[in-house]
Amino acid sequence: MTRYFEDLAVGDTFEVGSYTVTKDEIVEFAEQFDPQPFHLDEAAAQESMFGELVASGLHTLCLSVRLFVTEFVTTDDGLANMGGLGMDDLRWHQPVTPGETLTLRIEVLEKSPSESRADRGYVDFRRSVWNEAGEELLSIVSHNVVRRREEA
Amino acid sequence: MTRYFEDLAVGDTFEVGSYTVTKDEIVEFAEQFDPQPFHLDEAAAQESMFGELVASGLHTLCLSVRLFVTEFVTTDDGLANMGGLGMDDLRWHQPVTPGETLTLRIEVLEKSPSESRADRGYVDFRRSVWNEAGEELLSIVSHNVVRRREEA
Repeated sequence: MTRYFEDLAVGDTFEVGSYTVTKDEIVEFAEQFDPQPFHLDEAAAQESMFGELVASGLHTLCLSVRLFVTEFVTTDDGLANMGGLGMDDLRWHQPVTPGETLTLRIEVLEKSPSESRADRGYVDFRRSVWNEAGEELLSIVSHNVVRRREEA
Repeated sequence: MTRYFEDLAVGDTFEVGSYTVTKDEIVEFAEQFDPQPFHLDEAAAQESMFGELVASGLHTLCLSVRLFVTEFVTTDDGLANMGGLGMDDLRWHQPVTPGETLTLRIEVLEKSPSESRADRGYVDFRRSVWNEAGEELLSIVSHNVVRRREEA
């Protein structure tokens, strides 16, 4: 059963995950998209404001999107997501370090039907990433286009 | 000559790039971080609200961060970036399609010295991605921590 626009209510909350991040993966991602010393090298990271090797915040965001898509969109009961318009309020509350296990929390913040297109509506989700100690690592608000249920 | 906090003025604008995105790369990124049909498969993309295969917006963001880091931070005259606190106002104005060549524009929006730490200041950059036709594809505001010049 696909989850359509009509199936979401403001305040609905979902928890999906989990995913454990390795040091090799942190370095590999940084080499590709964010090659700054504190994401690549232990010694350089110790001299940085982080004091240790940390994942690129962009990497944490990418992992959160992957959890959103694979655990909340492309499942059998997944969200009828048509695409994204943008995101706001991205905050890295704490950096992700090697070995941490991440969980994604998804909350429906707002929804409104499209005024011009009968087949879709707009949904704002607050998405946040948590570690196993219950600490919030990242939060962001996404603006999604979600398909409406077809009338019989 | 490293570019420190003191070397930036509100309104300073920089253009860096360029980078041409391939279809294989779009699909490969999507498989890894955003496996939705309209980023993976031409036929499915034609049925989507995009009408054609388009890059994940997250991929466009990652490419913009790579241009920022490799062309503006880790160069010989690069920014003394200590890290990022967050980002706001991410908007995908147009999707990126295979073969497009991307340029990054960076504008200094605001700056303020840290009140508690003499070695750093906070700088907001508006970063935007443009194609060769002069169309804006993505924009975002980043909040960075930038090192101050050490006093003699």
